[in-house]
Amino acid sequence: MNSLRYAIIGTGALGGFYGGRLARAGGDVHFLLHSDYEHVRDHGLRVDSVEGDFVLPNVHAYGHAEDMPPCDVVVVALKTTANDLLDTLLPPVLADGSVVLVLQNGLGIERRVADIVGADRVMGGLCFLCSIKAGPGHIRHLDYGYITLGEYDATGQPGGVSERMRAIGEDFQAAGIRIHYAEDLVLARWRKLVWNVPFNGLCAVLDTTTDQIMACKHTRQLSEDLMREVAAAAQAAAGREIPETFIRSQLDDTAKMAPYSPSMLLDRRAGRPMEIEAIFGEPARQAQAAGCDVPQIDAVYRLLTFIDQGGTRGTTV
Amino acid sequence: MNSLRYAIIGTGALGGFYGGRLARAGGDVHFLLHSDYEHVRDHGLRVDSVEGDFVLPNVHAYGHAEDMPPCDVVVVALKTTANDLLDTLLPPVLADGSVVLVLQNGLGIERRVADIVGADRVMGGLCFLCSIKAGPGHIRHLDYGYITLGEYDATGQPGGVSERMRAIGEDFQAAGIRIHYAEDLVLARWRKLVWNVPFNGLCAVLDTTTDQIMACKHTRQLSEDLMREVAAAAQAAAGREIPETFIRSQLDDTAKMAPYSPSMLLDRRAGRPMEIEAIFGEPARQAQAAGCDVPQIDAVYRLLTFIDQGGTRGTTV
Repeated sequence: MNSLRYAIIGTGALGGFYGGRLARAGGDVHFLLHSDYEHVRDHGLRVDSVEGDFVLPNVHAYGHAEDMPPCDVVVVALKTTANDLLDTLLPPVLADGSVVLVLQNGLGIERRVADIVGADRVMGGLCFLCSIKAGPGHIRHLDYGYITLGEYDATGQPGGVSERMRAIGEDFQAAGIRIHYAEDLVLARWRKLVWNVPFNGLCAVLDTTTDQIMACKHTRQLSEDLMREVAAAAQAAAGREIPETFIRSQLDDTAKMAPYSPSMLLDRRAGRPMEIEAIFGEPARQAQAAGCDVPQIDAVYRLLTFIDQGGTRGTTV
Repeated sequence: MNSLRYAIIGTGALGGFYGGRLARAGGDVHFLLHSDYEHVRDHGLRVDSVEGDFVLPNVHAYGHAEDMPPCDVVVVALKTTANDLLDTLLPPVLADGSVVLVLQNGLGIERRVADIVGADRVMGGLCFLCSIKAGPGHIRHLDYGYITLGEYDATGQPGGVSERMRAIGEDFQAAGIRIHYAEDLVLARWRKLVWNVPFNGLCAVLDTTTDQIMACKHTRQLSEDLMREVAAAAQAAAGREIPETFIRSQLDDTAKMAPYSPSMLLDRRAGRPMEIEAIFGEPARQAQAAGCDVPQIDAVYRLLTFIDQGGTRGTTV
């Protein structure tokens, strides 16, 4: 490990897994918790994982960001739906030269963090992870886990692969996490949306898993059409090209995957807020601002928002 | 009454109501039934209605079209999802000069009937009716009931108001049914789609009632956008103009309506087939064939088809 000190802002299914793996590998990791604080302080963290279970009986657990030490790497592992908290959670843990690594879904997140901490401190990470919180301080890692890291650039240009990115990446690799270094974070985020928009969206609207979406020719076609709208939006809003071959491979890979429940479906079923703005609202607005119509993304966005707001079932016939 | 003999092809929530009202008013009405045949033969029809309950202890009930007499007016009151049956159900009840009155939702229905009986025998009717089948031979009429009649024209031109249309209309009026005569059936059908596409569609996809759709600004906006796609499709596919004022009045009227469950929502909840092809598939195909993209209608169409095919919920996390 590169003797970096880590803050995990949000110790849930994602933060608990990555932070736990870093701590198990000997990293200096400090966990911010909310409802699970006392449990983790007293009992530590437990990670049941397809790659091996482990328990960390003693971790640095905090109930308030002000109690945490300044850290070199501040990992934002909240749901984007909780990002209003960042204004108060980030400043206490920042040190000179610290980096805020945003491990969140969707678009526009780094810009929001840059407004708080300054653009030169922001790095993005795209997690391909299937994990859930099974109970207080108890994470269940079900599949995947690799991270694509990318430097944020306030002008929208590719940020390149930096030394600090490699240092962080090496720590994650030492913890057994596969790491990709992206030259262009913006392109990586749009590429991830190519999958997230159709499959998070349609699975959540229809309350079903990816295999069902792919098994019906109509929802498979709609997935493909949504992917093309994302590609058109990436071109118009960010000047990033997403080739047709990428769309085809995403469809083919998804058809071969085991039945999968995207995070937004899990959130819907658990009655938790869904990350609609980061995955649908922001991309749609960026596209529309660039003069690119995205009517099907917009339709799914509005259906999801209705569901998220708990639109009640009528009772009359 | 104009001494016309009526056949009711499909004695359900719609056919049972209109046929029952015609029979109560002294009309010569012959009812084709399927699963309810023996019950209605033995016990007659019962209509509980906001406009007054009534029972017809003895009606002309038939289990097979071949047993029916030739009729002057053959009322098609099946769901469009059962239209494959028309090839065998219509010919036995036709006489010289008889008219087939298609009281169904959606688009493209009259053309299909014209292929069977000849274009000059076809008339369309748009029903604004809220009724359900409460049990065997038992109809519950909840609200509305008026019918817009229009002559079918194989060339797609306005069919005008004919004498035979007025004769049929007078019979319905004698039975207490409000009747409008449409100069242009095609325009009337597209105008009805302006309401049916958003509200049947979104209520069925979201399993909710019209008031909930109108209460959420996102689904209200999506309804409005869907209405505009219908209007664009009507212009492109049929050369019919649907003015912005009509769209506004449809939205305003729906906002003022009591919570309403469109037929497609009732069908979804009851596990019955939904009339997706007539209300969504055919209009979308007509629009696309005319070079008019209707991406949001297409998206709702595909979501509904998935639901209709019983896309199962996944069981994995």
